[in-house]
Amino acid sequence: MEIKGFKFSTVEAAIKKPGRKDLALIFSEIPANAAAVFTINKVKAAPVLLSAERITSGKAQALLVNSGNANACTGENGMTVAKETSRLVADGLGISDQLLQVSSTGVIGVQMPLDRFTSAIPPLIAGLQNGTFAEVAQAIMTTDTFPKMETKSVQTADANYTIAGIAKGAGMIMPNMATMLSFIITDAAVAPEFLQKAFRNSVNSSFNAITVDGDMSTNDTCLIMANGMAGNKVITDGTTEADVFENTLCELLLSLAKQIVKDGEGATKFVEIRVTGAVDDNDAKKAAMSIANSSLVKTAFFGQDANWGRIFAAVGYSGATVNPLFLSLRFDDVCMAENGIFAGGDAETRGTSVLQQKEFTVTVDLGLGNGTATVYTSDLSHEYVNINADYRT
Amino acid sequence: MEIKGFKFSTVEAAIKKPGRKDLALIFSEIPANAAAVFTINKVKAAPVLLSAERITSGKAQALLVNSGNANACTGENGMTVAKETSRLVADGLGISDQLLQVSSTGVIGVQMPLDRFTSAIPPLIAGLQNGTFAEVAQAIMTTDTFPKMETKSVQTADANYTIAGIAKGAGMIMPNMATMLSFIITDAAVAPEFLQKAFRNSVNSSFNAITVDGDMSTNDTCLIMANGMAGNKVITDGTTEADVFENTLCELLLSLAKQIVKDGEGATKFVEIRVTGAVDDNDAKKAAMSIANSSLVKTAFFGQDANWGRIFAAVGYSGATVNPLFLSLRFDDVCMAENGIFAGGDAETRGTSVLQQKEFTVTVDLGLGNGTATVYTSDLSHEYVNINADYRT
Repeated sequence: MEIKGFKFSTVEAAIKKPGRKDLALIFSEIPANAAAVFTINKVKAAPVLLSAERITSGKAQALLVNSGNANACTGENGMTVAKETSRLVADGLGISDQLLQVSSTGVIGVQMPLDRFTSAIPPLIAGLQNGTFAEVAQAIMTTDTFPKMETKSVQTADANYTIAGIAKGAGMIMPNMATMLSFIITDAAVAPEFLQKAFRNSVNSSFNAITVDGDMSTNDTCLIMANGMAGNKVITDGTTEADVFENTLCELLLSLAKQIVKDGEGATKFVEIRVTGAVDDNDAKKAAMSIANSSLVKTAFFGQDANWGRIFAAVGYSGATVNPLFLSLRFDDVCMAENGIFAGGDAETRGTSVLQQKEFTVTVDLGLGNGTATVYTSDLSHEYVNINADYRT
Repeated sequence: MEIKGFKFSTVEAAIKKPGRKDLALIFSEIPANAAAVFTINKVKAAPVLLSAERITSGKAQALLVNSGNANACTGENGMTVAKETSRLVADGLGISDQLLQVSSTGVIGVQMPLDRFTSAIPPLIAGLQNGTFAEVAQAIMTTDTFPKMETKSVQTADANYTIAGIAKGAGMIMPNMATMLSFIITDAAVAPEFLQKAFRNSVNSSFNAITVDGDMSTNDTCLIMANGMAGNKVITDGTTEADVFENTLCELLLSLAKQIVKDGEGATKFVEIRVTGAVDDNDAKKAAMSIANSSLVKTAFFGQDANWGRIFAAVGYSGATVNPLFLSLRFDDVCMAENGIFAGGDAETRGTSVLQQKEFTVTVDLGLGNGTATVYTSDLSHEYVNINADYRT
């Protein structure tokens, strides 16, 4: 895979502790059209505030990202450090710091050790000659158990372009905008307005449709950079090429989003929740998210217990319009309940078999209208408690 | 303790399985003024629908309650069974079935075995001669590890009256109205309108201020019956006696609510969350509930990890008005963060000591206004996962 004009580097800066590469750099040889979405949490990390301000230009050329420290709840000093590290990198690269995006993930509330950046940045820049995107995916991991990456190539009339993306995030995953870190790069030439639009649409049907634990991070960031070096005719809205680009981007983001759920902290199950028959799509999403975030439903998944009643209870308090007598529910294609009551027969046995799989689908029909929504979630296991009870140690 | 005119009985009906008393009856010798609040979940159990309709009269004389089966998601047959059991009891007691409240708790989606009620009801009624309220508290338990009960006596100018309450509920606890089963009886004479008002106020500052897991049940019910047999002058609104009654009722309900949190499924910690300095009380409650329901915060409590940053993150996505730079946080009287950042010094060590206690208080000041709220919650432990992964087996 080659994404023309992009270079990568990773180093060990020992930001939290030594032993792994925790600082990464993505660099485009020329400024790229760029778009980003950030957490809507009112407590935002310093790098989020800084990057959000800079991205309004619609341009970015490089991204500096670290794991081990979120630089959140760090006050004025946190912002000073974010600016200073970005200045050092921009100077080293010979670009304006306005074209540098910065991103951090890790523990909240601990001041960022500037000195470790100062010494790590020169080798980081020197390393751009031979780094890979996969190494960046590795460096941004925190509690993730595997790096998340996806690549897709598209042949257009005049050129071949590639879109590649990486993501991290296994806890504090809750949809509402970008809900973890994800960085997408492409050498396609894409008009800025269309890039914005296609990106937002794709984020909505991917990262905003997953939930692991209902917590929303202070640092969530999803960034796309399109440097145009593939040489294709600029993709503009309303064309066939635009449809292809948006569909490809959407698939790529969905793949990354599903990887995040599969790597959900302590997850042993990957569950697709489909709600149909809602009054509208918005109601369907409310019901689906309520199911996906219910601790009682998620522990039942972990226990492989076909406790469909808890799912109806979660639908009932979701805020969606519901008539209990119209509800039906399936685990994969096994009908567990119809008209609000147990389907009978061998549903219990067959439903339990479905839940013993590693992946399955829960479909709830509200029987009211045409609204639909699909979200993806994991179960709630002992390991989730283990990971989060001693995350900082 | 005597609450004049109330009688109690419990029997083993083996509704889910044999081995314990699971059916209880509370009976007042004369019709009592009564008020009740029920779950606002749109998927309501049959007994909730039936009791809600009957309580509009403002009168009740008896309550039939079972554990082991929620009679929820049981359709028309569930309602038929609820009506039939209440008719059998009312006939046996020689009262109108309109004066009988019915309540159920246990597994959702399983049809109620009417035949077990039919054979258990005669001995249940016969047992009213020598049963106790404490035995009823025992019979309504599901995953509870101890029965919950509280009694308070009040001396008025003309008589002495008693208020006594029992409650159950360790999972599916989420505030929004009555959030579990709780039954309060008193021999005080209380005017119906004031009884309604005092009861609603008391529920709001007690049961609606606790959360264990953020799930809202299909069966939540909180009922009060005041039969007036203490012989006191009828308590009406706007009097000193009214203040005393409401304060006493409020304390009693808060005691029961705290007992529920302490018995939260798998709970190892009892945590009081206080939010101050919010724009208004409503915002303060949003922020407090967001903290209390965060899986990340609750697992940190379990791990005794002074991870205050997660608490700020939960405040940030709560929907309350927040300025990150004005936030401060204390564990008991240890200041962990001020002006949005770590307080420094030995805060980490001292904060960790606080979290090693079984009970502690988290106070977050938003630094914006005079809004305050207090909620009570537990931690999220391995045992919670254990209990809920195989609840039905």
